[in-house]
Amino acid sequence: MPLLDQINCPQDLRKLDPSQLPELAEEIRAFLISNVSRTGGHLGPNLGVVELTIALHRVFDSPSEPIIFDTGHQSYVHKILTGRQGDFPTLRKPGGLSGYPSRAESPHDWVENSHASAGLSWADGLAKAYRLQGREDHVAVVVGDGALTGGMAWEALNNIAVAQDERLVIVINDNGRSYTPTVGGVATQLSVLGKQLTAIRTDRRYERLLHRIKETVLGAPVIGQMIYGLMHGFKMGVKDVLAPQGMFSDLGLKYVGPIDGHDVAAVELALQRAKGFDAPVLVHCITQKGRGFKAAEQDEQDRFHAVGVIDEVTGESLAPGVRSWTDAFGEELARIAATDDQVVALTAAMLHPTGLDRFATLFPDRVFDVGIAEQHAVTSAAGLATAGLHPVVAVYATFLNRAFDQVLMDVALHKLGVTFVLDRAGITGPDGPSHHGLWDPSLLGLVPGLTLSAPRDEPRLCEALRTAVKIDDRPSVIRFSKEALPSPVPSIAKAGSVDVLFGEGSGRVLVVGYGQLCGMAVEVGQRLAQQGISATVVDPVWALPVSADLISLVAAHELVLTIEDNEIVGGLGARLSQECRAAGLDTRIREFGVPSQFVPQGARSELLAELGLTAQQLARFATEQIAATERQQSFTRAE
Amino acid sequence: MPLLDQINCPQDLRKLDPSQLPELAEEIRAFLISNVSRTGGHLGPNLGVVELTIALHRVFDSPSEPIIFDTGHQSYVHKILTGRQGDFPTLRKPGGLSGYPSRAESPHDWVENSHASAGLSWADGLAKAYRLQGREDHVAVVVGDGALTGGMAWEALNNIAVAQDERLVIVINDNGRSYTPTVGGVATQLSVLGKQLTAIRTDRRYERLLHRIKETVLGAPVIGQMIYGLMHGFKMGVKDVLAPQGMFSDLGLKYVGPIDGHDVAAVELALQRAKGFDAPVLVHCITQKGRGFKAAEQDEQDRFHAVGVIDEVTGESLAPGVRSWTDAFGEELARIAATDDQVVALTAAMLHPTGLDRFATLFPDRVFDVGIAEQHAVTSAAGLATAGLHPVVAVYATFLNRAFDQVLMDVALHKLGVTFVLDRAGITGPDGPSHHGLWDPSLLGLVPGLTLSAPRDEPRLCEALRTAVKIDDRPSVIRFSKEALPSPVPSIAKAGSVDVLFGEGSGRVLVVGYGQLCGMAVEVGQRLAQQGISATVVDPVWALPVSADLISLVAAHELVLTIEDNEIVGGLGARLSQECRAAGLDTRIREFGVPSQFVPQGARSELLAELGLTAQQLARFATEQIAATERQQSFTRAE
Repeated sequence: MPLLDQINCPQDLRKLDPSQLPELAEEIRAFLISNVSRTGGHLGPNLGVVELTIALHRVFDSPSEPIIFDTGHQSYVHKILTGRQGDFPTLRKPGGLSGYPSRAESPHDWVENSHASAGLSWADGLAKAYRLQGREDHVAVVVGDGALTGGMAWEALNNIAVAQDERLVIVINDNGRSYTPTVGGVATQLSVLGKQLTAIRTDRRYERLLHRIKETVLGAPVIGQMIYGLMHGFKMGVKDVLAPQGMFSDLGLKYVGPIDGHDVAAVELALQRAKGFDAPVLVHCITQKGRGFKAAEQDEQDRFHAVGVIDEVTGESLAPGVRSWTDAFGEELARIAATDDQVVALTAAMLHPTGLDRFATLFPDRVFDVGIAEQHAVTSAAGLATAGLHPVVAVYATFLNRAFDQVLMDVALHKLGVTFVLDRAGITGPDGPSHHGLWDPSLLGLVPGLTLSAPRDEPRLCEALRTAVKIDDRPSVIRFSKEALPSPVPSIAKAGSVDVLFGEGSGRVLVVGYGQLCGMAVEVGQRLAQQGISATVVDPVWALPVSADLISLVAAHELVLTIEDNEIVGGLGARLSQECRAAGLDTRIREFGVPSQFVPQGARSELLAELGLTAQQLARFATEQIAATERQQSFTRAE
Repeated sequence: MPLLDQINCPQDLRKLDPSQLPELAEEIRAFLISNVSRTGGHLGPNLGVVELTIALHRVFDSPSEPIIFDTGHQSYVHKILTGRQGDFPTLRKPGGLSGYPSRAESPHDWVENSHASAGLSWADGLAKAYRLQGREDHVAVVVGDGALTGGMAWEALNNIAVAQDERLVIVINDNGRSYTPTVGGVATQLSVLGKQLTAIRTDRRYERLLHRIKETVLGAPVIGQMIYGLMHGFKMGVKDVLAPQGMFSDLGLKYVGPIDGHDVAAVELALQRAKGFDAPVLVHCITQKGRGFKAAEQDEQDRFHAVGVIDEVTGESLAPGVRSWTDAFGEELARIAATDDQVVALTAAMLHPTGLDRFATLFPDRVFDVGIAEQHAVTSAAGLATAGLHPVVAVYATFLNRAFDQVLMDVALHKLGVTFVLDRAGITGPDGPSHHGLWDPSLLGLVPGLTLSAPRDEPRLCEALRTAVKIDDRPSVIRFSKEALPSPVPSIAKAGSVDVLFGEGSGRVLVVGYGQLCGMAVEVGQRLAQQGISATVVDPVWALPVSADLISLVAAHELVLTIEDNEIVGGLGARLSQECRAAGLDTRIREFGVPSQFVPQGARSELLAELGLTAQQLARFATEQIAATERQQSFTRAE
């Protein structure tokens, strides 16, 4: 790859002759396909932004001119062009190259958060600061058409539109997809802008007609001036009335485009022109997700958005298929919906990833993909519930953080039955800090009346789901892991509502697990028993509200260990402890989970081990505690 | 008031002759001014929607056709027309008429949450449900132009635009204000639509010109058809190209307007027409906030948005002015900014209510009002901080719930110094469940590294603010109450970073207060001392992170009481308890604050008393606990 080998930083890129750029683009595509098929990662989005990113780095002087990527998974090409080609074999691996921008990796990286629709706000803040500081640098931000369905993007555009002194270039990477095709009015609008204008603008007769219309308008004296004023009010000339720049211009934003996002010269020219305005400008680039990889180009379900290890040619998965929580959920919800027509489903641009595709095929009228718009998903679910339906909102755990206020104020305050199904809960692995699902139990635990279950296996998932869709006066939550489904963990007894998984229900140590970690909890109990320490292991089944049965179990033990796959601040152990204190019970409780920190990318098992979440470490802790207590007791007796 | 006396339900309204409606409107205005000047409440917004609400109730058959109010403070006229005139003397009083829609009050009320921009999502959910259920009822929603600056509204519009089978009428109540004038591109757009079109449409020559242009266009064979197709793609006729319907039509939404929102016949006609589409339609009504009350019409600062007790004629406040936390904050921030030009300020449509007006007057370039857009406020602050500035984001506590994800992912993950100043923290009083600031400490406590202070008096507020603006590697939070500033509560000693307010620093009971409740905490200590129980009362100054000094103090006492003005789940006491457990310390801790529930409207002191938050009740609890311990100890000794 002769050209790519010469590129170690953006300056190298600027030395190339424009005629060499298409060749460079092809080399980058080959590099991406070859590397990402081996490591896994976000293949489709990056194949779509090759020319776009080359042009950005030729026009903007990164890092003094920041290039922000909204949804950082489209930053691979940017990484290649900023000296990180050699790190691609470590992509998304523990300690390796991040799948998102990372400030630790490069001064060219700015925004590590990869929750969509935030990039415009970041760029607006930077551009505002530069203006105040008297800096003349421009800020560029790349935002997908999918991200424009998120409310944050709108809030930012609304502000940027009136900040005419900001040097800000907004590149819309319009591939028509946010996983599945982008939904909503904005997609229609972009499509209209993209398709119809391209056709019309290439017709020279159009120019002649424009001229005639202009004469007609200006020939009518008073009214002509009024109309001219009207057009001026819209910041449009006569030409723009017939070739409308659409809603962006209506807001007061300058619009350049649409541009063929795979014509690197055209994109470069458009960016140069945009930069020249010294004001916020929107550059609309039409791109093709998965460009250059036949399997991706032809896939309608966008399965190449993010891939595991795949065949470099056919795109077929080389990782063995395992049954996931997502599969189990999708199947069970479809079964439930077949007999309960009150059940409807919502998702935020993640029909396939959340397993709702089966439901959508069977009941197309009863599923709503709202775009990357968690807030709207939750509140429109409140509306659906008010009318007597039972909405199931399926999203990744980390993304529900966006809609806390809506769960609290729209669902819970109104005592509505909406079920939230949170996939990717807990430590997820290679996606790093913004994609672990660490906060949902603590966050949702703040919502009065909310019920939450982290089922430990598929039978419990099915049960919990069937229970949840019948809870019609409060929000219910089911969370599960990205991991493969574990083998069922049978209960050996019931203590009221609590499942006893091991032990007698009394003794010295109570181990409380839930979700994916129940297996580990049982192993802790077994290890303690082997050392002669009587232990009970339980699964509360519903972690919230904390049940009186669980509190009774606490009262029947000396030491309680809680094990949870989330931030421990405000989590299962913290809540149990708080409810025990309220009941006047001061039994020693120790919670194990993720401390209050951001967890880096890594293999889940390794990350858990680093956090002390292994049966061995937990059993050792309990053993030491019990031994210390005995030493203290014998010391007290000896007095 | 002869007409108003006849109106007990919407059916009565429909019996009136259209010619009587202006008179009814005037009666309603007189009723509003007379009542709200005595009780306090949202006067300005309701004076603006009198005719609008009359028309809505004549056209839609509430409650089978829901009328949703986005920001429920504009629902007073709706309450008057649905049989609640007689309750107005109790408006916003304990147990009285709610200042927002209330489902307990009336089947005509639907959405009690009054966080802005949610109404469209509610309406979309209801309309989707009705469609699925085969109901032909329409859903109407009234949304202010200010609420359109919030991202949720955009998420909803984006979805509604492609839901052409929903029977949904969206009334934009465009008064050009969200407290202060509405900011951003959408305001520009509404203003263009409102002003320019009205002028042009009244000119008959316009019609003739349109005809000529149409002939020109269609006279050009191929290209004419293409342009016609283009227009069709925009769902616009030729007329609409010259009288653009703006961004709403670009999205694919039908647009009716602009209408004079004080011409009840015109509004009624527009609503009827809109209803006839059997599809989502946007009806754009221009209204005047404060209409009919001279003092409000003339006030540029929109101080009549919400009023206390005022003179019915002059609008002058009849409540004595007291120095508020808001005043103290606004003054101190302006002092800080005078010597530190890194400090910039942001707010979400609340420049005056959050006390930033002084800052804005002195440093107009350094303050950003982003509209009702908390998410954008937080993330653009992250951008500003990245460039080296120190943003202070001033919002009401309850509204930061909207931006948890942004505080977590954009500010904290990126280790940025952004200060959040939360006004109206804790129990606020008459605004009810959606306006108490109960969740901020627990919610923000989930953010790794975040620091939080609830200063107990003005000197501590000033100190905390000066400290916070120098914290440049993590989010810092300062929260305070809506209450009047208390007298300074002096510290008698320091225990490391902790202020000792009473006692020796060791003894039987440790009372931990923070913020507005420190005075109560001192009184608890005094009462215990009077009963011979040694007590220490402290203010941790910075509640988060929990300091080692505070944990040492816990270790030096038998019983710890924490007193907090927020939900106790995940609050000060819960966090202290969790940190003590992590340190291997199992001292008995009992937390007092707001349990996990929604708190109704009421007088703050009464609400606190109902929750057991009085010095008397807290001292009694501690006394009983100590007595019980002594009984148990003497019982053990007797064995």
